[in-house]
Amino acid sequence: MPADGSGPLTRPDETVIAALVAELTESFGDRVSTAMAVREHHARDFSFHDLVPADAVVMARSTDEVVEIVKACAKHNVPIIPFGTGTSAEGHLAALHGGICVDVSEMNSVLEVNAEDMDVTVEPGVTRKQLNEYLRDTGLFFPIDPGADASIGGMAATRASGTNAVRYGTMRENVLSLEVVTSDGRVIRTARRARKSSSGYDLTRLFVGSEGTLGIITKVTLKLFGIPEAISSAVVSFDSLAGAVDAVIATIQWGIPMARIELLDDVQMDAINKYADLDYPIKPTLFLEFHGSDAGVKEQAERMAEVCGEFGGDNFSWTSNTEERDKLWAARHNAAYSAIALKPGASVMATDVCVPVSKLAECILATKQDVDDAGIVAPIVGHVGDGNFHVQLLIHPDTREEDIRVCSEINRKLVERAIAMDGTCTGEHGVGQGKMKYLEAEHGEALNVMRTIKMAFDPQNIMNPGKMLPPSD
Amino acid sequence: MPADGSGPLTRPDETVIAALVAELTESFGDRVSTAMAVREHHARDFSFHDLVPADAVVMARSTDEVVEIVKACAKHNVPIIPFGTGTSAEGHLAALHGGICVDVSEMNSVLEVNAEDMDVTVEPGVTRKQLNEYLRDTGLFFPIDPGADASIGGMAATRASGTNAVRYGTMRENVLSLEVVTSDGRVIRTARRARKSSSGYDLTRLFVGSEGTLGIITKVTLKLFGIPEAISSAVVSFDSLAGAVDAVIATIQWGIPMARIELLDDVQMDAINKYADLDYPIKPTLFLEFHGSDAGVKEQAERMAEVCGEFGGDNFSWTSNTEERDKLWAARHNAAYSAIALKPGASVMATDVCVPVSKLAECILATKQDVDDAGIVAPIVGHVGDGNFHVQLLIHPDTREEDIRVCSEINRKLVERAIAMDGTCTGEHGVGQGKMKYLEAEHGEALNVMRTIKMAFDPQNIMNPGKMLPPSD
Repeated sequence: MPADGSGPLTRPDETVIAALVAELTESFGDRVSTAMAVREHHARDFSFHDLVPADAVVMARSTDEVVEIVKACAKHNVPIIPFGTGTSAEGHLAALHGGICVDVSEMNSVLEVNAEDMDVTVEPGVTRKQLNEYLRDTGLFFPIDPGADASIGGMAATRASGTNAVRYGTMRENVLSLEVVTSDGRVIRTARRARKSSSGYDLTRLFVGSEGTLGIITKVTLKLFGIPEAISSAVVSFDSLAGAVDAVIATIQWGIPMARIELLDDVQMDAINKYADLDYPIKPTLFLEFHGSDAGVKEQAERMAEVCGEFGGDNFSWTSNTEERDKLWAARHNAAYSAIALKPGASVMATDVCVPVSKLAECILATKQDVDDAGIVAPIVGHVGDGNFHVQLLIHPDTREEDIRVCSEINRKLVERAIAMDGTCTGEHGVGQGKMKYLEAEHGEALNVMRTIKMAFDPQNIMNPGKMLPPSD
Repeated sequence: MPADGSGPLTRPDETVIAALVAELTESFGDRVSTAMAVREHHARDFSFHDLVPADAVVMARSTDEVVEIVKACAKHNVPIIPFGTGTSAEGHLAALHGGICVDVSEMNSVLEVNAEDMDVTVEPGVTRKQLNEYLRDTGLFFPIDPGADASIGGMAATRASGTNAVRYGTMRENVLSLEVVTSDGRVIRTARRARKSSSGYDLTRLFVGSEGTLGIITKVTLKLFGIPEAISSAVVSFDSLAGAVDAVIATIQWGIPMARIELLDDVQMDAINKYADLDYPIKPTLFLEFHGSDAGVKEQAERMAEVCGEFGGDNFSWTSNTEERDKLWAARHNAAYSAIALKPGASVMATDVCVPVSKLAECILATKQDVDDAGIVAPIVGHVGDGNFHVQLLIHPDTREEDIRVCSEINRKLVERAIAMDGTCTGEHGVGQGKMKYLEAEHGEALNVMRTIKMAFDPQNIMNPGKMLPPSD
């Protein structure tokens, strides 16, 4: 049973799977695998959820091949679970009802760069680092950075964002169009390359964040941005967490166009110092980045320093030096590893609430109290400009059951608190298995409208079943 | 018959309407009207489409009242057409299959301003000017400006944008959440107030741009922005239209964060000069606006001047003076009136394609050729940063049939050209009746997926029927 109550596992009959695998093997040869190592690899993500392998894994190399796999699965009424890089955070890859894992990681070509239009079309297996490497000579870049080197298809499927969403938006704002294979094997394109459109229902946004439950993404057209002429970064620590958050609110209202505003609490700063032998003050700290012209980033940093001063921020230091900037952001990107280093061998139950920013300090402080009351250590890191933060709750194999019990309870309280504050259970990771039980509280009657969509798009319930939408009573 | 072939009119039986009107009158008293003047007023929009009045108009004052009206209509199987301010541009208000017009213009309260979170919740009848007037003392504003003083509900329903979408986005990016009454009278809230979320299907974006065909919007939560510290505006004319467009492409790639980039062709500039007794050069011209700090807008204007110079732009003049800025934008906002003044008494068939910006010059120039070949005068004005432009085709009552024939042909060629360029038939006006016939060419199989959504949400087909989705063959 999965940890989060997504219902009983009912797997297709073994003879059905055998017939389907035989059929797929005829077309795909050794790109079909039933080896346990391969199946387990494709069920593993960045979360603490149970490993539930698919019955077989198929490597797809084209949209036509995805269509063939989907049609075969539909014919046999067998579930399909798409796989990009395995970096999802909520058990999205588990084959809870058995089925076929479709690995699109070899669909990894950058298909078309339109430099003048500042867009690019990629296959879903292209990763964000691969894309930016490819774009390097064009003067353009793709800004969304969820930390992991995730696939673009997976990022679209989970509506991912990350450190610079405050400036550039999330996948919701940055996907121009998708090619999708529907549950009955049709191929659709959700929109054209125009920057805006009022032509029909917004299918692009409907598939962005649908977590493989409505169809399989086979192409993604993304907005790109000009690489900024200048980048400056800054670090500033505060006596109180509320001061740090209030400084952020003030700067956003002033319209300072910050590219990144990351909040790390005292526990996280301590973990980072220990992990990388650094000596930051062990206080609530903001990591900041500004993009613009030379004069612009200087002005932004100076204004931000002023604002931070008003809210108790001291030791404001900023730099445009590339090496120093890289060092700073390496420290930030090590947040997860430094958390795990506190309990070597642990995996992370990453909470992911997002609340209106006016409630952020209150939400974090109440949660820190819960963590302290539980007698555990859990660093907090947040995309504070968006109101989104992660408590890094550690699940260790030796104490797995007890850790899950204690941490799930903290997570539950946190989500209920966030929802009471008009926030959401997940800002950027997606629902997967882990957040499913909160959707009723968050969406109410709208959840039934989501179920209507699911039923209309996937009447057989073969597209990544058992995720996102909880069964109705 | 409507001009655009949306199929035969089949109206509910008169006795059904009489029974429904009697039922509604019991609850709504004199807020139900069957007077022809009232019905015609509510069928009139900003377009050339035929006036097709509803059978009755009901003024709703609350979500509960909208629910009551929807349930009554559903019971009698009678269509419902929502009305905000009557500023739509594609015949959205015509009661093609008869039915009840629900006027929400008296649902015009600003419900909640959250200044720290920079959001606001309004009833759907609040207009954008009313909202900005209300917000004046908060230091915040709502940037989307489609020209007309449209209702926020209507702007959400048509996925509107306007002059500063290039900086602030469209309604797609700026609606945080909606309250919607579904076709069976349920009330749902599509999302919470968090700035981002990965929790379930994006119902907000599904209803934004749905043109009343999936449900009736009864509340809208919007993002707000800080009023910029400084604003500067500029005008610059070019020898060639291609030069003007190339200058815009270059500045966007350089990351100059322009708030407005409006292109007016020589014909439009001539019309504006005549209309308001101005003396702008009769050349392709950009009207620009920059938002930021004092130093920032100065830097932006100076850089833009430099870029324009490289592409043949001369007479670049910029100002931060409020009075001069207002004069400049008044000239731009008079574009439609100055076009109509060329043929007094005419109404406008406003084309609305949006193409990848690299194709914009080519698309405009080919269209100007079509206009010249037809021997008519039609000014062009465009939101050039987005690739969206309007040819103001004039339909005069005295020559209506011939005007519609000639202009529809230009429009058809233009849309086919835009679609061939990977653009869309409508950038910001919506499909309504006018663009319905192009959806098959634009969306292909995806149009059937849209039909699946419509059928799942509105199985009786009572929500603004005969608009947006063409009947399937």
